[in-house]
Formats: sequence, C-alpha cells, structure tokens
Amino acid sequence: MIRFSESAPFSPISYSYEIDNILYKKKSQYQEIIVVENPYFGKIMLLDNVVQVTERDEFFYHEMLTHIAMHTHPNPKNIVVIGGGDGGTVREVLRHDCVERVYFIEIDKEVINTAKEYFPTIAGAVDDLRVLIKPMDGALFVKEVKDIDVLIVDSTDIIGFAESLFSDEFFRAVKGCLTKNGIFVTHTESLHFHKKMVIEMQHRLKGIFPIVDLYTTPLATYPGNWWAFAIASLSLNPRVYSRPCVSGTRYYDSEIHGQCFLTKGFYDKLINNRLDW
Amino acid sequence: MIRFSESAPFSPISYSYEIDNILYKKKSQYQEIIVVENPYFGKIMLLDNVVQVTERDEFFYHEMLTHIAMHTHPNPKNIVVIGGGDGGTVREVLRHDCVERVYFIEIDKEVINTAKEYFPTIAGAVDDLRVLIKPMDGALFVKEVKDIDVLIVDSTDIIGFAESLFSDEFFRAVKGCLTKNGIFVTHTESLHFHKKMVIEMQHRLKGIFPIVDLYTTPLATYPGNWWAFAIASLSLNPRVYSRPCVSGTRYYDSEIHGQCFLTKGFYDKLINNRLDW
Repeated sequence: MIRFSESAPFSPISYSYEIDNILYKKKSQYQEIIVVENPYFGKIMLLDNVVQVTERDEFFYHEMLTHIAMHTHPNPKNIVVIGGGDGGTVREVLRHDCVERVYFIEIDKEVINTAKEYFPTIAGAVDDLRVLIKPMDGALFVKEVKDIDVLIVDSTDIIGFAESLFSDEFFRAVKGCLTKNGIFVTHTESLHFHKKMVIEMQHRLKGIFPIVDLYTTPLATYPGNWWAFAIASLSLNPRVYSRPCVSGTRYYDSEIHGQCFLTKGFYDKLINNRLDW
Repeated sequence: MIRFSESAPFSPISYSYEIDNILYKKKSQYQEIIVVENPYFGKIMLLDNVVQVTERDEFFYHEMLTHIAMHTHPNPKNIVVIGGGDGGTVREVLRHDCVERVYFIEIDKEVINTAKEYFPTIAGAVDDLRVLIKPMDGALFVKEVKDIDVLIVDSTDIIGFAESLFSDEFFRAVKGCLTKNGIFVTHTESLHFHKKMVIEMQHRLKGIFPIVDLYTTPLATYPGNWWAFAIASLSLNPRVYSRPCVSGTRYYDSEIHGQCFLTKGFYDKLINNRLDW
C-alpha cells in the first residue's frame, strides 16, 4: 500500500493516507502543489504536504466558513475571499443571489489553475462574472479596498506565509474596509490541538472589533478536527441569521447556524482560561 | 523520533503518535494491553494497537458518554456499565449522588488492573463501595439482571469481540432489563468515517425501543473524531435533562446537553439517506 504522511504544523497526531495515484506535482512560486487520489476521500490537494481539500468532505469546511457570516448579513453585496484557491468558498458565496462582486485574492494563481483542472465541482464557480480574481497578498489588498460587506479568510495554516493574515495590523485593516454592518470570518485551527491559538485570536480580535465570537464544526481531515472559526462584526450578532438558508447547501442550514456556536458557558470558560485541559 | 501507528478498523486516515516511553505491554486472555507516554496526550492505553484512552482528552468522551443519559433520568439508582475497563465511565456515573449500585461488567480484568496502576485519575473510582465489578461478557450479564435505570456500553470498536454488544439480540435483552424510565446509551463510531454504521444502529434500535436519538461530540483521538452516540429510551426524551449538572464535570453542562444532539433537519436527512456525502 502506498501512503503519504501529512506534515501539518503543531499536530500531536500525524495523519497518513493511502493513495492510488499521484495526479499532479508542481512547485509554484510559493509552494509545492500535489494532487493525489485516495479511495475514501477522492482527490486530495496538498500544499507543502498539508491536506487542503478533499472531494468527499470539503463541503463541511467551505459551507461553515462561508454561510454563518453570509446569512448573518441581511444583504451582502461586496465580498472579499482571501486565499481559498480551490474555489470552494467562492462557490458558497455565490449561492447568495444578492452578491454583486467577489474579490478573490489568492496569492498563488497555480492553486486556482490546479483546482480548475482537477476539482471542477469545487472550482467551477470562479469563472462567474461577479468574481474578480486578484493574485496578490491579501494583507496588501485590504488596505486598498472599501465598502466590503463580508470578508472571509480561507488561508493555509496560521504558521508560514499566511501569518500576515492573522496579525493585529491585518485585523485593523479588515475593520477599516468593512461597511457598518460588515462581518469578518477566519478559521483559527483546532480547539483540540491549538487551543492557545484559538483563544489568542479571540482576545486579539476583541481588542479591535466590538463583537467577536467563535463557532466550530467537526471536520474529517484537518488535524484536531474540531475546527474553530473566529467571527468578528461591527454591529450584527453572528449567532442570529437574518435570512433563510440559500439553496444548494449540503450541511449548513438555519438549525446548524443556531447550534454551531460554543455555548455561552463553555465560551466564557475557554477564553478566560478556566478550562482544566 | 519514535512513533506508533494505530490499527483502528475502517479508518481511512491512519493516526500515528510520537512516544517517549513504553510503560507497559502485556497480552491478556483477550487482547494486548499497552501503555505508552506521549508528549501531548500524556499516558495512552492501547488495546490491540487501538487507542482507547489518553490522559489529556479522556474526559470529553467519558462525560459525553455518561451524562446525557444520567441527567435525562430524574433519579438513576441502578446502573450498568459494560466495558470501559479504564474506569472513566464509572467515575462519571458516581458523580450522581442518587446512584446506589454500579454493575461494572468488564470482560478483561487486566484492563482494570492496568488502569488502576497507570491511570489513577481515571480508574480511581472503581473501588467505590457502590461498584460491583464482574469480569464477564456483557451480552450474558444483561440476560440475568433487572430494574436497571441506565445502561451504558463503553466498548472497543464495533468490529471484533465487542460485536455481540451491537446485535439485535443484545438490544432486546437491554430493553428487558431496564425499568420503565430506563435509558440505554452506546457509542456508534464516527459520523465522518462510519456513517453507514451510525445509521444502521439508529434503524435497528428504532425497531426495538420507542425513543431513539443521536448526539455527537468532537474527540481528539478516535479516528473520524466526530463521535456518535446512540441513545434509546423507554419513555424519557433524552434531549431534555431533568436535573441540574452534577459538580465536577469539565466539558458536559446543561447547555452542552441542549446542543449536542443532531438538529432535527440533519438527523432526518441522515437516517433517511438523503445526505449526498
């Protein structure tokens, strides 16, 4: 049996996958892009030997990253997606008919090209006329854009060249580019494996945004699995959706929206470091 | 770096752990028992090379296996725990002062002995005077006991010698030994990795019990992580707790009780196989 072992940072369990084929392997300007085939997950894309997306379970991550913020906002028109070169987040954003413009800021164009060739069900939406692809650093882009309703960071792990997307300077720039109902959402790794990082991000965002919260979803492939999303808003409470669920989702719905946030008691214990764990 | 790779059945991702030490290794009559030390999880017990319990995260599993059923019941006195030789489930059961008797049915006494020596914070409660240890097959025990308020199966994976604890014959015998408010709970593996099995158990329990439901919790170590618990009851709705949270829990509380069940929409789609995944 041929296997690969993932090199995810700070993972106390190493995950390895059987592979049937290596379909693609190329070093871009930024990272090594690999596409393999696995008997359970289907095609898998790796960046620098870390699993980014699999055909089977990608919808859990993409829907949960996207739809909490998008359904909280009553009428999101101008959206920024930073990272997410596979196109899954853009696909979910475009399920909302009110969307007029998606700035798709992926620094590595090779990731988009690879996804379009090997993951058409994920990347198919990036050619939509509402999508403006800009292959540049998201940390620079947020300084030059205005009037954004929802800004989504769909980056690689926090360590590495995505680090600039988790700095206070970046968070302040995000706040500056949002409208008064604007919402920002980003993944912050796993509550099981990276609890300190999850807590740190909550505290740093609270120093900048008036409303900061945390929701989770159990994923199959990202190490630690209990995946945490930080959501920050200028005025709207992200625990309350303002519109019925768009059509086409496979996991997200209004009930999931109501259930995915940490309970108030657990959240309080978590961010005040009163959890003995 | 010294590592071991787990041999979990039906796991499309193989998990491997760094180890500092092998503390114990012995073949019992039933299985090979190993205790290792890991820099993140602390001590880990393996049975036939499958991780059963780790010092760091065991409380998530033991609390969630135990306290939903125990808090649903208004006054549970007679409890059966089948399996769970590490003692964690018995420890959680005994947090309820109303408990008078715990029949602790672990087929392999060597597991209990190993836990008492290497995991005293987990196994410490098994010497409580209310606990009656019976080293026998749980499938036989349920045929000879009566008037049980809560019956908990804390077994190894469904495949292997725990198979008899997931048969219709066993489920019928469990029903027969419960009081009219009785509740039965068992783990049914991972929603991410063993969805068919999770669904099958729900349908089979529905053929025997009037009330059957499903709740989940994200675990750090069991493969697939999104761990599913089947709960079956003769009269009480397990979504509704009847008593305030006992003291001493680290994760479970009344809010978590209210949130851990699948949403009605997702549950309905799941068990009717209307999920495209």
